[in-house]
Amino acid sequence: MSIHRHQHTHMTIHDFQTHMHIGWDKDIPPIAEVDSGQTITFEISEASGGQFTKRSTKEDVASLDFSKVNPVAGPIYIKDAEPGDTLEVEMINFQQLDWGWTAIIPGFGLLADDFEEPHIKTFDLTKPNTTEFLHGIDLFIKPFPGTIGVALPEEGNFGVVPPRQNGGNIDIRHMTRGTKLYLPVWVEGALFSIGDTHAAQGDGEVCGTAIEASMEATVRFKLHKGKTIAEPRYEIPGPPTPEADSHGYYVTTGFGPDLMEASRKAIKYMIEHLMDTYGMKAEEAYMLCSLAVDLRISEIVNAPNMLVSAFLPNAIFK
Amino acid sequence: MSIHRHQHTHMTIHDFQTHMHIGWDKDIPPIAEVDSGQTITFEISEASGGQFTKRSTKEDVASLDFSKVNPVAGPIYIKDAEPGDTLEVEMINFQQLDWGWTAIIPGFGLLADDFEEPHIKTFDLTKPNTTEFLHGIDLFIKPFPGTIGVALPEEGNFGVVPPRQNGGNIDIRHMTRGTKLYLPVWVEGALFSIGDTHAAQGDGEVCGTAIEASMEATVRFKLHKGKTIAEPRYEIPGPPTPEADSHGYYVTTGFGPDLMEASRKAIKYMIEHLMDTYGMKAEEAYMLCSLAVDLRISEIVNAPNMLVSAFLPNAIFK
Repeated sequence: MSIHRHQHTHMTIHDFQTHMHIGWDKDIPPIAEVDSGQTITFEISEASGGQFTKRSTKEDVASLDFSKVNPVAGPIYIKDAEPGDTLEVEMINFQQLDWGWTAIIPGFGLLADDFEEPHIKTFDLTKPNTTEFLHGIDLFIKPFPGTIGVALPEEGNFGVVPPRQNGGNIDIRHMTRGTKLYLPVWVEGALFSIGDTHAAQGDGEVCGTAIEASMEATVRFKLHKGKTIAEPRYEIPGPPTPEADSHGYYVTTGFGPDLMEASRKAIKYMIEHLMDTYGMKAEEAYMLCSLAVDLRISEIVNAPNMLVSAFLPNAIFK
Repeated sequence: MSIHRHQHTHMTIHDFQTHMHIGWDKDIPPIAEVDSGQTITFEISEASGGQFTKRSTKEDVASLDFSKVNPVAGPIYIKDAEPGDTLEVEMINFQQLDWGWTAIIPGFGLLADDFEEPHIKTFDLTKPNTTEFLHGIDLFIKPFPGTIGVALPEEGNFGVVPPRQNGGNIDIRHMTRGTKLYLPVWVEGALFSIGDTHAAQGDGEVCGTAIEASMEATVRFKLHKGKTIAEPRYEIPGPPTPEADSHGYYVTTGFGPDLMEASRKAIKYMIEHLMDTYGMKAEEAYMLCSLAVDLRISEIVNAPNMLVSAFLPNAIFK
């Protein structure tokens, strides 16, 4: 047996390889059926689907098979869930395994035109609260699932990369312990899946990857019958990022005719700042932006220019 | 005399009407000349330039003369400032007068297509820390200048609405006491101006206005010779929004092919939530989003869809 019921309200899904799928397809048969109120622990493999190891090199990044990327565990059938309901998913706990990776993958990421070479960096995740990025720079470990969602109503397999009205690869860094995610239900049973677990990430995930890490992920379901929402929502129970906030921020800005261009400029200036101030290589600075820098929309109404701020937390520097 | 030097390092600029200008033009003569290290207090009129009062109605919004909107005090000539330097502006103190306003101005704002009618709401700002939005909803007063910048190098008058590489109408809510803004210097003397003071605003200022309020604004200059930046940067000394953060957030999301569409959807869902949950009128909910809801970029790399989150602080609800 690869699915264990510890008690009537808690189930563990082992054997990720036999309980994973890639993409969203309502015709994938459920691996388990649960009631509202039930808690499930998933043993989740990191987003390369086992293609990377602690010793992977940039050559491994160059030869990454994208068709195997971002597998998710599931789907889980939630009893009585019907289209028009809302599925609450409470983030109970996330326990990362002992290592993780971040990569710059050619053709992928906000500055793909500026970073054409593959890079990878691995992280020791054996300490509970922080992991060293470079000497003197410790990132806060704040584990969460990057991909979490339900089946779409349309026929067919929908690629796992873009987020949609079913959630999916939302990569919202605030899906940490205590957050409640609300997903619209589009098919009978909802057909919930989860994967792409991250140990640390900034708002935006600008290089395209977080600290990607295998994890034991525990969530609790609650079905809200007849409560209808159009797209995912969530509730954060307290201050979202108290550790990062504690020592303030160094912030670069970019303006532009659209928010994408403004974001690109803000991140380019932050990369310049990190290289000038801390002697980082460009690819290290870009990765650090993806792992620790938050993109905020400062101004969206003063046409023809928008303004984006990139927030670097001072607290990561010793 | 309308300019008073209290001591060699502190000056007050009274008589806003005689020391204001609209738009950025390097040929506007400076109203004062100061050294690096000097502190100036500006008496600033709210962004309508005196067109609105405590008793203004939507008819006054409909007849607003846009050519008189967003006046700034200045320019101030900073001695020794030359193109290629950076001007640090430290936010020392902002003291709002006793009232403020927020308006929905037809044709202006993120949801201009959905809100075609003019509206205005005025606020009592006599209490120091909060102001009532509606019964049971108190907004945190966090005063800052919406418009702050220096002259551009090109000839001519550049309209005051869009932010640019000189700063300007950046509407960054984090320009509160203690923040240091770094502005690139584009012309000799920098030619600094400030205005458009706000008592409260969310990241994005989605309806197009904050709580617009006249203010005494005090800033301190420091010139960084030979330090060159391309666009404004800033430093926040501690947690950016501890009051708002304290009780967590209710968050709506929107996905879309671009961040503008994603932002529009996230705000529309938040307006629905505020109307459904608190019985607000649509225009009240839209204004509340502008005054208290923060737009964050959750995901910018998972093409073809971007994801934006709209953060509503629970702490504003009693």
